[in-house]
Amino acid sequence: MPQLRLGIAQTNVVVGDLEGNAVLLAEGIAQARAAGCALVAFPELALTGYPPEDLLLKPRFVERNLEVLAELAAQVHGIVAVIGFVDRVGDALANAAAVCADGAVVSVYRKRRLPNYAVFDEQRYFVPGDEPLALVDVAGVRVGVTICEDAWWPGGPMRDLAAGGAELLVNVNASPYHRGKVAQREAMLAERAAEVACPIAYVNLVGGQDELVFDGASLVIGGDGVVQVRAPQYEDGLIVADIDVPARPAPADALPVVAALGHAPTPVGAATPSAVLVDDAAEVYGALVLGLRDYVRKNGFAEVVIGLSGGIDSSLVACVAVDALGAEHVHGVLMPSRFSSDHSVVDAEDLAVHLGIDHRTIAIEPAHHAFLELLAPSSVGREPGLAEENLQARIRGTLLMALSNMFGWMVITTSNKSESAVGYSTLYGDSAGGFAVIKDVPKTLVFSLAAWVNERAGQARIPTNVLSKPPSAELRPDQRDDQSLPPYDELDPILAAYVEEDRTAADLIEAGFDAALVRRITQLVDVNEYKRRQFPPGVRITTKAFGKDRRLPITNRFRG
Amino acid sequence: MPQLRLGIAQTNVVVGDLEGNAVLLAEGIAQARAAGCALVAFPELALTGYPPEDLLLKPRFVERNLEVLAELAAQVHGIVAVIGFVDRVGDALANAAAVCADGAVVSVYRKRRLPNYAVFDEQRYFVPGDEPLALVDVAGVRVGVTICEDAWWPGGPMRDLAAGGAELLVNVNASPYHRGKVAQREAMLAERAAEVACPIAYVNLVGGQDELVFDGASLVIGGDGVVQVRAPQYEDGLIVADIDVPARPAPADALPVVAALGHAPTPVGAATPSAVLVDDAAEVYGALVLGLRDYVRKNGFAEVVIGLSGGIDSSLVACVAVDALGAEHVHGVLMPSRFSSDHSVVDAEDLAVHLGIDHRTIAIEPAHHAFLELLAPSSVGREPGLAEENLQARIRGTLLMALSNMFGWMVITTSNKSESAVGYSTLYGDSAGGFAVIKDVPKTLVFSLAAWVNERAGQARIPTNVLSKPPSAELRPDQRDDQSLPPYDELDPILAAYVEEDRTAADLIEAGFDAALVRRITQLVDVNEYKRRQFPPGVRITTKAFGKDRRLPITNRFRG
Repeated sequence: MPQLRLGIAQTNVVVGDLEGNAVLLAEGIAQARAAGCALVAFPELALTGYPPEDLLLKPRFVERNLEVLAELAAQVHGIVAVIGFVDRVGDALANAAAVCADGAVVSVYRKRRLPNYAVFDEQRYFVPGDEPLALVDVAGVRVGVTICEDAWWPGGPMRDLAAGGAELLVNVNASPYHRGKVAQREAMLAERAAEVACPIAYVNLVGGQDELVFDGASLVIGGDGVVQVRAPQYEDGLIVADIDVPARPAPADALPVVAALGHAPTPVGAATPSAVLVDDAAEVYGALVLGLRDYVRKNGFAEVVIGLSGGIDSSLVACVAVDALGAEHVHGVLMPSRFSSDHSVVDAEDLAVHLGIDHRTIAIEPAHHAFLELLAPSSVGREPGLAEENLQARIRGTLLMALSNMFGWMVITTSNKSESAVGYSTLYGDSAGGFAVIKDVPKTLVFSLAAWVNERAGQARIPTNVLSKPPSAELRPDQRDDQSLPPYDELDPILAAYVEEDRTAADLIEAGFDAALVRRITQLVDVNEYKRRQFPPGVRITTKAFGKDRRLPITNRFRG
Repeated sequence: MPQLRLGIAQTNVVVGDLEGNAVLLAEGIAQARAAGCALVAFPELALTGYPPEDLLLKPRFVERNLEVLAELAAQVHGIVAVIGFVDRVGDALANAAAVCADGAVVSVYRKRRLPNYAVFDEQRYFVPGDEPLALVDVAGVRVGVTICEDAWWPGGPMRDLAAGGAELLVNVNASPYHRGKVAQREAMLAERAAEVACPIAYVNLVGGQDELVFDGASLVIGGDGVVQVRAPQYEDGLIVADIDVPARPAPADALPVVAALGHAPTPVGAATPSAVLVDDAAEVYGALVLGLRDYVRKNGFAEVVIGLSGGIDSSLVACVAVDALGAEHVHGVLMPSRFSSDHSVVDAEDLAVHLGIDHRTIAIEPAHHAFLELLAPSSVGREPGLAEENLQARIRGTLLMALSNMFGWMVITTSNKSESAVGYSTLYGDSAGGFAVIKDVPKTLVFSLAAWVNERAGQARIPTNVLSKPPSAELRPDQRDDQSLPPYDELDPILAAYVEEDRTAADLIEAGFDAALVRRITQLVDVNEYKRRQFPPGVRITTKAFGKDRRLPITNRFRG
């Protein structure tokens, strides 16, 4: 069976960095050529980064992307390169892939299915491609190119390309991660490959971009639906794959074929070993690490600072930060108040020592006292309550931001999804910062990830007491989360159904959840939308994260 | 010439409040019938409010909207009512208008052009209508119904309805305000009416919804392009209009006509007098007032609190708040620091007295001192800088939020668009609050609005000193805005071109702006995207507000 050496370029590009991305792509092309690849495929919109969002509305941005593509294509010799870029179609734009060979763009494919749901807004920018299809002859193999969403539905251009004589389908992607996405993609691609009876090389982007993590995990799947090659998840770089491409006679009504590369190059060195699938906890944790690392670095920061409460959220976040950036780039701050327990200070110190991070303690009492005095004339006759609790969180937020301003450290916040769903956090307090690593991680998953961190390390990176003690914000004497919220294993399923599955309160009550509890929790979710709008971005790991994924109005009286 | 008495219902509905909106619509129907209207038209998606956003993804929400429509239609007798609602089309949804008569829905029109640009995401939710067109016979007049965007382009359903025999076109809208939109709409409608040679009744929503203000200003325009009736801007309620509807013979290939109302009712009372157009300042100010009032009230608040610095931004915001909510619902807080000038305290007090609002003074020195002490070990050997400046703003934000928590007052922030564009504000400091009234108002417009407020009042509501002194944040001794920024009349045109017109730095330099200044300002805009994402919502008054209108990535290296 003929083999084709394919370069799968899981390039970690930066949105908007046209010149920088072109350098990365040129390196990928050179590397693939050196390995003797006949074809190297880069992800969807590799040149602009994905998603470029409203940069696309700036004509000069699109113009520059076309210039850079032409410069890049001029460097492609002895190999064929598939490069995602933004094409012009009259006054409109297309999400396109250029097939480059012999120093020029020899063929362009324009994406036909434009996702406009969940985090995707492609119909805001692009028109769907409708030009006649064509194949590209790469060293004797007829290759058809499609882009991302084109692969997700039966029929469509992949079927037509295969029916028109394609022997290999290359599908280039910017497919963001969520839990379970890898299995979902493999199932979809197996179905598609079987449908078209043709191998598919699925090439995905790697890297964090604001709330999204593109996880790579590219894949070559045979026309029999069997996986031939798996690329690693979360790792950027070139994967060299020798893939089986059964030769097929061209059909009578074959699509036109554009010549691209006459002879197959001689392979140099071995192919990249196939990656192994990891379990759920490792996968989620990997997304958090890459998402944080890229957000910090791509925005010009090197170091981060985290408030360490001795609780499980800040402990997990500190571990992620150390794994993302290195212990020497992570700073911890303990900020005990008059209500902090001894164990929380000890636990936070233990954690910092285990992780080997710089840490300092700033007891907030003097500022706390000063605020209470300043507010005393306004609070005459009032019992201390929410205002006084929030004060402590806001003093801490202010201290962290002051350290950020002094030293250029990005403040990493520690709220989880369960808390931000019900508004159990203080705006401008514990929600204050540049990145909210675990904002899409429900509390029950925080517990399992923390346990997994220790398990993987073979020791208590996170002090065992942190994993076993009942959660508390410690904003008043003897406070515990379960005084105002149901246990998290009762809360999280309600939140998942309401937030991620678009169920309503009435649906949940019908499904057997306690009516009073459902009414209370769903109302909390609704009335706290205003808070979440002011939260920093964080890594999306579910099918629906708070952010552009879930566009609920703040002003919203629906309580169904 | 035959006349038709038309009810233009500028109803101020609330997003998601299906039952509450149905009550408002039923009242409008009853009122229009009592006035002897043959037809009453409500705005686009009047039943759900606009935009319902991801509520549309909840099947139960759509179901309930259909039930409420049926209940409402059952009450329509002796009049025809056009009611915007969400229709089901198989598994998909349509943005639809129901024509109700004789206790039932007699005809449904589904919007054909779905805007998916600027603040609009309609292709996320809806499929375009493509059912055969029909007319409705209302008391002998053949009426064609379309929805919003359908009217904005030559050709399309309005042309087909007119060519098919329509004698009156009713176009129902949820058209958000921006500066100059009224004139733009009139020009577009005059063109459309002339094109189809048929009168058009343009019915628009009134009310604030998060960042959007729907300004009403409904309009009836004759087939000759001449305005017959103008409804008031920003005022909700029923406008009774007696409009000229020239009878036309039905063409040979006439569209089918659905019977709706046999005889014209007898008009009762006079028609509503036509509204007069207002000037730019009054129009912008009106949007701010309605936007603030509706955000506060629709979210269940009655009172607001504002930090009064003695500067022009907080002074203008206080005036808007008083005009929106009444002086008795507005609270001012003066929070002088060691760097505050005497005049700023005097000016802030004068303002509060002029406006007749409750106010108190909390000098922040004790908290300021406490923070500096807490941070001293971390700041050894450092010159005071940004950290120390931001501290003061964050202490003030914390105090305002504490008062908010104590008394249930919504904190109203005072940053203008010029400041938030270049990041000249403190996150969790002056940006902390529930609503940012003037976030889309450039500083030069703040100056003219403040002058207009005094002019209109015939007295210095805003102390004259506030209008004349140079702007300063007073966060260090002798600080003035023009030490770090160019004068606002130089800054604002650069910002307008860069932010609102999608020009790039290179474009602006080509257009003759100073290159170094353009590079510095556009870079400031880019790198402060992260701050703006954490700002509260505020009223959109330009063609591109920060918010869902302008979706730039935070992680973005394009500097072209």
